Amino acid sequence: MRSEHTRILLAHGSGGRLTHELVETLFKPAFSNPALNVLDDAAVIAVPGHGSLAFTTDAFVVKPLFFPGGDIGRLSICGTVNDLAMKGAVAHSIAIAAIIEEGLEIGVLRSVVRSISSACCEAGVRIVTGDTKVVEKGKADGLFLTTSGVGSIAKGINVAGSRARPGDRILINGSVADHGMAVLTARNDFKLKSAIKSDCAPLNRLVGRIFEQSKEVHVLRDPTRGGVATTLNEIAAASNVGIIIDEALVPVRPDVRAACNILGIDPLYVANEGKLLCVLPEKVADKVLACMKKDRLGVDSRSIGEVVGSPRGVWLKTRAGGLRPLLMLEGEQLPRIC
Amino acid sequence: MRSEHTRILLAHGSGGRLTHELVETLFKPAFSNPALNVLDDAAVIAVPGHGSLAFTTDAFVVKPLFFPGGDIGRLSICGTVNDLAMKGAVAHSIAIAAIIEEGLEIGVLRSVVRSISSACCEAGVRIVTGDTKVVEKGKADGLFLTTSGVGSIAKGINVAGSRARPGDRILINGSVADHGMAVLTARNDFKLKSAIKSDCAPLNRLVGRIFEQSKEVHVLRDPTRGGVATTLNEIAAASNVGIIIDEALVPVRPDVRAACNILGIDPLYVANEGKLLCVLPEKVADKVLACMKKDRLGVDSRSIGEVVGSPRGVWLKTRAGGLRPLLMLEGEQLPRIC
Repeated sequence: MRSEHTRILLAHGSGGRLTHELVETLFKPAFSNPALNVLDDAAVIAVPGHGSLAFTTDAFVVKPLFFPGGDIGRLSICGTVNDLAMKGAVAHSIAIAAIIEEGLEIGVLRSVVRSISSACCEAGVRIVTGDTKVVEKGKADGLFLTTSGVGSIAKGINVAGSRARPGDRILINGSVADHGMAVLTARNDFKLKSAIKSDCAPLNRLVGRIFEQSKEVHVLRDPTRGGVATTLNEIAAASNVGIIIDEALVPVRPDVRAACNILGIDPLYVANEGKLLCVLPEKVADKVLACMKKDRLGVDSRSIGEVVGSPRGVWLKTRAGGLRPLLMLEGEQLPRIC
Repeated sequence: MRSEHTRILLAHGSGGRLTHELVETLFKPAFSNPALNVLDDAAVIAVPGHGSLAFTTDAFVVKPLFFPGGDIGRLSICGTVNDLAMKGAVAHSIAIAAIIEEGLEIGVLRSVVRSISSACCEAGVRIVTGDTKVVEKGKADGLFLTTSGVGSIAKGINVAGSRARPGDRILINGSVADHGMAVLTARNDFKLKSAIKSDCAPLNRLVGRIFEQSKEVHVLRDPTRGGVATTLNEIAAASNVGIIIDEALVPVRPDVRAACNILGIDPLYVANEGKLLCVLPEKVADKVLACMKKDRLGVDSRSIGEVVGSPRGVWLKTRAGGLRPLLMLEGEQLPRIC
């Protein structure tokens, strides 16, 4: 931990540089083991006598609880299903723990429960266990949910943040920054009226289609906190490669771009909740891209860049033709987006 | 939900009657499936091609974060290991999600992490994945942890809250109410000076010894929130039987009893974090009890009661010789004990 920080800052939860610092200097040394050290969205665990499973957990503290295109309930199920899907695992069972602030309207809880139930149905998963804690008024913010999930990894699938190779192509299944900007504008702090909807969706069926087409995928990641830029930095670092993204090819919806421009936010650093980055060999890229486009959640899929041996790090080929470094998120751009 | 409650009360998180009402009227109807409906401490999931696994999750909101005998870190690992052990599962992998209040001292987090690490070592489990979220100052209370765990269930083991049978004996591995009273007196709201230490401990090795001795155990439960009385009520209801406990046989440490008396609290309703209730056929009870006593965490084990066909419900044979009903916890006796 850099010595100037003696207290936790919001940025320690940003998913960006300070989160990484916390993980690398505090959590990883204390808990070190092969399954943890991979630091992907989910861990692969070899349960004795049970083969390989993926196991994941995520806390959700989004504010407000309801936003266009979703709510904390839908978000928590999609987040967990997607983390499992990013390991090539078929989500199976979900556990959910709620921390509720005393005084929350039961009607609010009922709406969130309905939304969890419908997201489970959409994704084809089930809640198998849970826990409820209540804390005094003022000691939490309405409702926090933590969802954990277990899924099975089919034979022959091996995706990891460390497997990107020079020559690989990078695909994305649609426009970026929808989720973060939907939540941000829903807060109404900026008095921005917008029709931006979160992209929050379970990606397991899309991932199923991808693997039906090819098992040669190297990396799958959902660019949530910290956005596409931070996720690509994680992949580049884990794989010890460079990544070049073509700015003109990254899809951003016009209303999202407008809101980003007004607020001075780079859409490449904004959280997505229904997007995936697929890094795969050039030779299967077109075939996989074509099949992604056939999925409801992949209609706008496209190739946005490539993996190179050098330069290392992540680079943006700008519209003007230059290359600028795309660093990991610094500080906290949008707190409590998920 | 009873119509008079339109908002969440602290008692909805007590583990007692209102928690059950919330689960039965809101969560169970919305999420209903065979694995969930059992409502034991952990779910048993049949992962396709992977056999039977136990899966559990728990949120920890204990206040204060540090108390005699433990802290939120040790508590969260023991809680999860124990929930798995209560399904006869060998704990294997743990996932941990932290919700941190902005401004928490990093030194505090460091102590909790050390404690998690040492509890993992003691229990023989590992943290395989995690998540960190930070919320603004005043929107949480220092630190909340949610731990989830996966474990393997060995062949031939079948324990469930619904399997208690008339004639079964009820064993406990030591004194009750230590954890709850340790946390309560640590808060210092009552200006009670005490040396009461939490019993917080991983019970997986003790459970291993029990199953080595006999696989005929019917029910294992750890009497946490709501205490022995509430857990026995859950077992009696799930098994559709009666349970009679002998008050004189339930071990309570003198200092714990004194604190309970001063505060007007019944130790049978106070949370434990290193105790288990073992319901098993009379014919193997003495053998299992003798082996429990050989374990470091079972030295004070004893038989405290029996399962009967009637009367239904849970009854306390008092020192005076009468029977009084031992109901499920009403209201919230001790908020934020775990």
